[in-house]
Parts: sequence; C-alpha cells; structure tokens
Amino acid sequence: MYYIGVDLGGTNIAVGLVDEKLNILRKGSVPTRAERPMDEVIADMADLCKKIINDQGIEISDVAYAGIASPGTCDSKNGVVVYSNNLKMKNYPIAEKLSALTGISKVYIENDANAAAYAEIICGAANGAKNAIVITLGTGLGGGIIIDGKIYSGSNFAGGELGHTVIVSGGVPCSCGRRGCWEAYSSATALIRMTKEAMEKAPDSVMHEISAAAGKVSGRTAFDAARKGDKAAKAVVDSYIDYLACGIGNMINIFQPEILCIGGGVCNEGEYLLKPLREKIISETYGNKLSAKIEKCALGNDAGILGAAVLGIEI
Amino acid sequence: MYYIGVDLGGTNIAVGLVDEKLNILRKGSVPTRAERPMDEVIADMADLCKKIINDQGIEISDVAYAGIASPGTCDSKNGVVVYSNNLKMKNYPIAEKLSALTGISKVYIENDANAAAYAEIICGAANGAKNAIVITLGTGLGGGIIIDGKIYSGSNFAGGELGHTVIVSGGVPCSCGRRGCWEAYSSATALIRMTKEAMEKAPDSVMHEISAAAGKVSGRTAFDAARKGDKAAKAVVDSYIDYLACGIGNMINIFQPEILCIGGGVCNEGEYLLKPLREKIISETYGNKLSAKIEKCALGNDAGILGAAVLGIEI
Repeated sequence: MYYIGVDLGGTNIAVGLVDEKLNILRKGSVPTRAERPMDEVIADMADLCKKIINDQGIEISDVAYAGIASPGTCDSKNGVVVYSNNLKMKNYPIAEKLSALTGISKVYIENDANAAAYAEIICGAANGAKNAIVITLGTGLGGGIIIDGKIYSGSNFAGGELGHTVIVSGGVPCSCGRRGCWEAYSSATALIRMTKEAMEKAPDSVMHEISAAAGKVSGRTAFDAARKGDKAAKAVVDSYIDYLACGIGNMINIFQPEILCIGGGVCNEGEYLLKPLREKIISETYGNKLSAKIEKCALGNDAGILGAAVLGIEI
Repeated sequence: MYYIGVDLGGTNIAVGLVDEKLNILRKGSVPTRAERPMDEVIADMADLCKKIINDQGIEISDVAYAGIASPGTCDSKNGVVVYSNNLKMKNYPIAEKLSALTGISKVYIENDANAAAYAEIICGAANGAKNAIVITLGTGLGGGIIIDGKIYSGSNFAGGELGHTVIVSGGVPCSCGRRGCWEAYSSATALIRMTKEAMEKAPDSVMHEISAAAGKVSGRTAFDAARKGDKAAKAVVDSYIDYLACGIGNMINIFQPEILCIGGGVCNEGEYLLKPLREKIISETYGNKLSAKIEKCALGNDAGILGAAVLGIEI
C-alpha cells in the first residue's frame, strides 16, 4: 500500500509518493500560482498526483489515501479549508475535489503546521511521543500541538497559534494586530530585525562584512558573527535566545510535553543555539528543571509532504 | 449510589456527600493542620468521610467512590501526590491510604485546580463543553485545561500552570522565580498590589476611604471606587482588565476552547468585569473575533468538593 502526501504551499505544490515504511519513493512539484481560482490549482495538484502514481508504475487503487497539508484553518473532519489568506480559499471542499479528480477514495486534510508536527511524532524527532509541541522558526513562528498522540486544533480548527501569544505586553507590533507576540521576538524575521538594529548601532561589527558578503542580512548573520567573537552579534544572539526560552518556558508550563521540537531555518544553528537555550529554559519553567526534551525537528524540507502523507495513520 | 468529594486545602479538609444528580446532600470540614505528618491528616479525613456517611444513614458500600482534590502535582493514574509544597507530601499514596482507612474501594485524586475545572464541564458553567479552560483569580492564578472532555495535565501531571506564563518579559517578579508571569498581573494579589501603588500616588482617591472602612485594601477596593467614578481607581481597573485580556487572548490563540470560565473572588465583579473584558479580548485574539464564550465559574465555594466528587464520571 502507498500514501500520497501533498504539501500545498503559497509558491509550490509538492507531491510525494510514500510507502508503508514512510520512505518517499518519488516526488515532484508544480508552481501553485496562488492568484488563480482554486479549481485550477487543484486540477494541477490532481494531475501531479496521477503523474507520480503513473511514473511509479502503480495503480490509483494501490494508494490507500492522500493527505493535503494546507495553509489556513482546515476543518479536518469534513475535508474543508475554512479559510486561507494565502490561497484565497473560503469553505473550500478540497478533499472532495481532489478525490473526484484523482479517484483516490480517501483524502485527509490538515493545517500545514499541525501536519508537520504530526509527522515529527510519527517518524521524526518526537517519534513515539504522546504529548509534544513543535514550533517552526521561519517568516512567522508556527506551532503544532500533539495531545495523546493526536493533533489538537481546538473547537474551531484554529488553535495552536503559539506564535501569537504575547510575551512582551505593549511590545513590538505583530502582523496579527497584537503587540509583543512571541512571533515578533523569536521568528527568523524577528531575528533579522534585531540583527539590523544592532548593526546600525555597531558600525564596526563583523556582521557588516558577513551580510555584505552574503548580499543580505539573514537569520544566520548574527550567529555567524557571534561564532567569530563579535560582541554586538553575541548580544543579538543572547537576546534572541532569551525570548525563545521565555516562550518555550510558557509552553512547557502549560503543556508539560515529553518533547518540544524546533524547526525552521534558525534551528540549523544546532547545538550553538540549543545548548544555551536548554540552560535558559531551566530558569523559565515551573520548578526549575528541564522536564521536556528540546530537540531539532528531524524532517526538514520533507516535513510538508510527510506531514500530509501520515494523516491517515493513527497511533 | 453516592460519591464522596474531599477538598483537601491548606487550612481545612472539606468533605461532601453527593448523589447521582450531583446535589451535595451533606458536608462538613475539619482543620487540616498542615504542619502535622500526613498520616494524621488523612486519619482525620477518613474519620470525617465515615461520619458523613454515617450521619446520612447509608453504608460504605453505597458509596461508588471517593475523589480527593489536592494541592500540588497529583499522579491521578496511581493515586499518588507526587509533590505538594503546602502539605509536605512527596510521593504520598493518598488514594490507597484513604481507601484502607474508610473501606471505600475506589479513590480518585486530582490536582485541585484541575478538579475544579472538570466540575465546571460536568455540572457548572462549561456544562457539556469538550474543550474548556478554567482560570481562578485568587492568591495565585490557577488554571485547568479540559481537552476532549478530559483533564489535561501533561506528561508528568504538572501541566496547566497557565498563571506561570510570562506576558511581560522582564516584568514584576513572580513567586515562581520568573519575571512578568500572568499571575503577577492578573491574580487578586496582583490587583491588590496595583491598587496600593495607585493609592500612594493618589492621596485624594476614594480608594482610601473604602479601604479604611473595610479595614484593608482588597481585590474589591479599586472596583468599588471605580463604580463611584474615581479616576485613579478606574485606571487600576482598566489596567487590570488589559492584562487579564492579554493572558486570556493567549489562551484562546493556543486552545480555541468553546468556553473559558473565570473563578475566584475577582469574578464576583460580574458584568462590570466581564463586559469590558470580552471587548478587550476581541482585539487580543487571532482574527479579531470572540470565538470562545467568556463566563463566570458557576460552582463557587463548592468547586473543590464537587471537583473531587465528579472525578469518577467520564463523559
């Protein structure tokens, strides 16, 4: 038996064919062109699914189900995207549509951050955990909550917005309209903002050379300069880790998960990020002990496809 | 069939006999005298249970189970209080002990805040809700999480410390060791602190008369003065509601519960608190709409006994 995983992004639709051991056997992608009517987008999605199944030399009936990881609020019970800003969907019956176009009888859907979190407990860094939190440090700060081995998304499928919890009352404006959200201090975007602010105040910092060589200030600029001993960069990294530890401390005090996994570009800093982070989290949690494992996500770029492909698996 | 509910507090042990419709038929209490060895405390608890059963004219065998709502971290699976600071318990097998002393065959235990939250969904303000959050504004800010009709306390029974989530990074020191916890801004204790601070700066405020008449500054002082049009008091109330809305907005963005219930003395302010609170929460939640009901807890002083008495009920 095989599973199809569809990672529906704002830029590309990525589709993967996965076997029962969750190896990705074959994958492909097409541009989403999100400005189009969704019926055109889904027609391309269906064609890509069929092409991959055909290229593998198997039949539609060999595919147990397809899963779709979509941005926005996803009614996973009814297979409907309730709302997505990126892709202009509103109460769009995406599961039914893909099923009709491909002949795959069962199609699951889930919000992309939730699906990626589920993939981490099924076959990633949180493998086997019953209660886990997964955060992704990217443009935003995405969150996925796993409780008792299942995705938790609240009563209206819109829960898990962990990035939109205020940690600095009255702080920096967030894209969501609040001020001081965790996302505004711990996303990669926030790290870049803090790096630029520090660079303005420190004209001699190595961060200037590093960003000039790279052609831009990125989430790596401050970390790379800090590794070279740059003081201003070290202060940026320390402050970034402080805020990250603060938000993670909040999540541990609420959820006491077995493990909290961190994904997104920033986590490629590895132990240079994780070691001081774990130390700071200790003083940010009730009882001052590190009750949860803090680890890097394992699935990287395949988290979307795998997150979609595991949606039919129950543990 | 009857249920026994035991509310084990730092000051008193309250025991209630409850019928199948969850009416409290009879109750009583004895001082805890928490400084004693726990075996003495539990002997008094058992005697009170037996007395109440006897006074009602029923037999031990008519009691389906007893429940204990205890402070601290409670391993509800094994009936053991893992740790309680108030009552000096450490891995104390409280369920087994009460069962042996009373002859009641089944004894459940749960953390008191969690048990009170469960009572609200079984027979209180959140009746019938699958996903609910209950916060109690008292000396501290207690939290209870209900997910899919069950108490959620994390992987080590220590979850749900909603009051110990930082909303003001680097803010006021909290009893837990962190700075800027929600508890340090939204508990009754925090309200009293903010009231005292405002009184110092406003010698003409009505708050001085009100607190002098009452013999102390309480959680009611600022609310009572604000109702009389006192400007300094109004500013305290506004600021208090701002912080409360901030923390509740965080919980809604995380959990998207059907309902969030507020208990503790402060909620006796009723709609004078709840109406502006609901308005402020709207701008504190993702999507700017009030997706969860915000209500006062219904069970008041009986929440402890009822919370314990419903522990054997599954929905």
